[in-house]
Amino acid sequence: MIKTDILIIGAGPTGLFAVFEAGLLKLKCHLIDALPQAGGQCSEIYPKKPIYDIPGFPEVLAGELVDNLMEQIKPFQPGFTLGERAETIVKLEDDSFVVTTNKGTRHNAPIVAIAGGLGSFEPRKPLLENLAKFEDKGVAYIIKDPEVYRNKKVVIAGGGDSALDWSIFLADVASEVTLVHRRNEFRGALDSVEKVQHLKDAGKINLMTPAEIVGLNGKDHLESVVIRKTGDDSAINFEVDNFIPLFGLSPKLGPIGDWGLEIEKNAIKVDNTLDYQTNIPGIYAIGDVNTYPGKLKLILCGFHEATLMCQSAYQRIFPDKKYVMKYTTVGGVTGFDGSKKEAPKAVVKAIE
Amino acid sequence: MIKTDILIIGAGPTGLFAVFEAGLLKLKCHLIDALPQAGGQCSEIYPKKPIYDIPGFPEVLAGELVDNLMEQIKPFQPGFTLGERAETIVKLEDDSFVVTTNKGTRHNAPIVAIAGGLGSFEPRKPLLENLAKFEDKGVAYIIKDPEVYRNKKVVIAGGGDSALDWSIFLADVASEVTLVHRRNEFRGALDSVEKVQHLKDAGKINLMTPAEIVGLNGKDHLESVVIRKTGDDSAINFEVDNFIPLFGLSPKLGPIGDWGLEIEKNAIKVDNTLDYQTNIPGIYAIGDVNTYPGKLKLILCGFHEATLMCQSAYQRIFPDKKYVMKYTTVGGVTGFDGSKKEAPKAVVKAIE
Repeated sequence: MIKTDILIIGAGPTGLFAVFEAGLLKLKCHLIDALPQAGGQCSEIYPKKPIYDIPGFPEVLAGELVDNLMEQIKPFQPGFTLGERAETIVKLEDDSFVVTTNKGTRHNAPIVAIAGGLGSFEPRKPLLENLAKFEDKGVAYIIKDPEVYRNKKVVIAGGGDSALDWSIFLADVASEVTLVHRRNEFRGALDSVEKVQHLKDAGKINLMTPAEIVGLNGKDHLESVVIRKTGDDSAINFEVDNFIPLFGLSPKLGPIGDWGLEIEKNAIKVDNTLDYQTNIPGIYAIGDVNTYPGKLKLILCGFHEATLMCQSAYQRIFPDKKYVMKYTTVGGVTGFDGSKKEAPKAVVKAIE
Repeated sequence: MIKTDILIIGAGPTGLFAVFEAGLLKLKCHLIDALPQAGGQCSEIYPKKPIYDIPGFPEVLAGELVDNLMEQIKPFQPGFTLGERAETIVKLEDDSFVVTTNKGTRHNAPIVAIAGGLGSFEPRKPLLENLAKFEDKGVAYIIKDPEVYRNKKVVIAGGGDSALDWSIFLADVASEVTLVHRRNEFRGALDSVEKVQHLKDAGKINLMTPAEIVGLNGKDHLESVVIRKTGDDSAINFEVDNFIPLFGLSPKLGPIGDWGLEIEKNAIKVDNTLDYQTNIPGIYAIGDVNTYPGKLKLILCGFHEATLMCQSAYQRIFPDKKYVMKYTTVGGVTGFDGSKKEAPKAVVKAIE
């Protein structure tokens, strides 16, 4: 069982920054996220898009912001359980919580901070009869480790940036990449569309448009997909090792919705008068996942909420200690890894 | 009379960021600050010191943060009344406010946002009998325009970074710079102490230590200062054009304390359950100047407070309009100067 001080559910910008503020209070954090990497939407949905309203950044790419936050929290050595979704929560007699993921990983902490954004991003799935049978047996909706596809015959379906970008990437990894889309037109960064065109011209990507996958075949593992060209009654059986439908992700509050938390407008109600705690003492909700009067779903608001949450968490964990805040400019930052950052000290020196 | 939508008192990081959030709502801002430049403490007290707890910046110099914020708000063309202190406030019949500075500049706005930090920074003054008589007549506590001292004989008093840095700077501007300090030891950045030592060795700065200024002479304008070496009964009369005592700044809430606002622990009480409004409708307080349960005097909290304040201000100004927030990543930023920043648009393009 993984033990920590603050268990953070959701590794988006708000969850990541909570690690920093907790670290200043000498509290350790562990983060769970359903996505295979940290950063939440910023990494998964729009890493190359600029954000203009992060204070102090006239412009910052979402992916850069995540990189910066990862660098900022590095001294506080957060733990990560990635690619797993927080599923159940149980309160122990000592008032701490045990959170278990869909893969059975168990985490124990006195404080749980839900920083779940709009929810866990669930892939939109194609409507295919025996789809479930082949999940993780040739069918995947999110690419966690591209090496899985080395020297494999891969079919990607979709018409957006993910389908384009992964087709480009896997063209050098897989033995054969076939991109199937129900229209001739793709919607994505101009650069990506042009790259796919070049790879297709060079014979490195097969393109089938307008077409759709209408069937899956195989014994235990996927062996072929059935592809039908639009406007064509006949269909072909196409041998493949892997089928990756990339039809986008849609956020769902998911199992957290059943944790007994007060929910309003698909978000978790918190006490914004003090510390962003939910109706269950010891469980906080910060960032886009929470709601309160006047709530704005902005990253910068999540940063503030994370900060106040950490102060409250500290008081819950150490009810008898009085914490005196020290400015980082004055006190520096002392990492759990022994690192120390601080402003150059003034010298006291005679001039003769 | 200067007219604007939101009159911001205090041009520190919180006040500056409010301009950005107001700008997204198409509200214009004007800022008043007692200091001669924007940035508050960050510019005046510790521009070269690193801050470690601004989200997304593993490390940023306070001066850099201000530069970044100025760049970020540039599209929204804020107005500035600098080097003047907000002194009085009057409510007009139309519910708008008129704020007048100590120099008589008048400002009119339906919304006032006090972002005054720890207060306006007042210089610590030496105890000299006729000091007031020479203020602005040879005696200054803050250097607003170094050109004032070109080819003048200048005496600087003090032993910290300001005294060191301005002695260095003015060595190339004034005809003569004399640095007086009551100890032999200076307290500042090693680099600055060493530079002063070099300039002294090169005969470009006179040093008088340990010594004190004990008198000022002159008819209408300052003509000389009386300098006494410590442990020496005699004193010399030293001809100068300017005397600049740099003994640090100390923050005072100042005249704002008499505006009828509810004050607690030298800060302004606000409604943190909604919009950081004070007990006077239409007047908000954001950043270090305010207080509420759980308040943390952190720049990142000021950013959040500024953002929620702007939403509330918008609703006060346009009670009948419903504002639908648009993410900057989606909607971009349209400046009042006609500038437009936005994410590169996706293309829809066939691959053939």
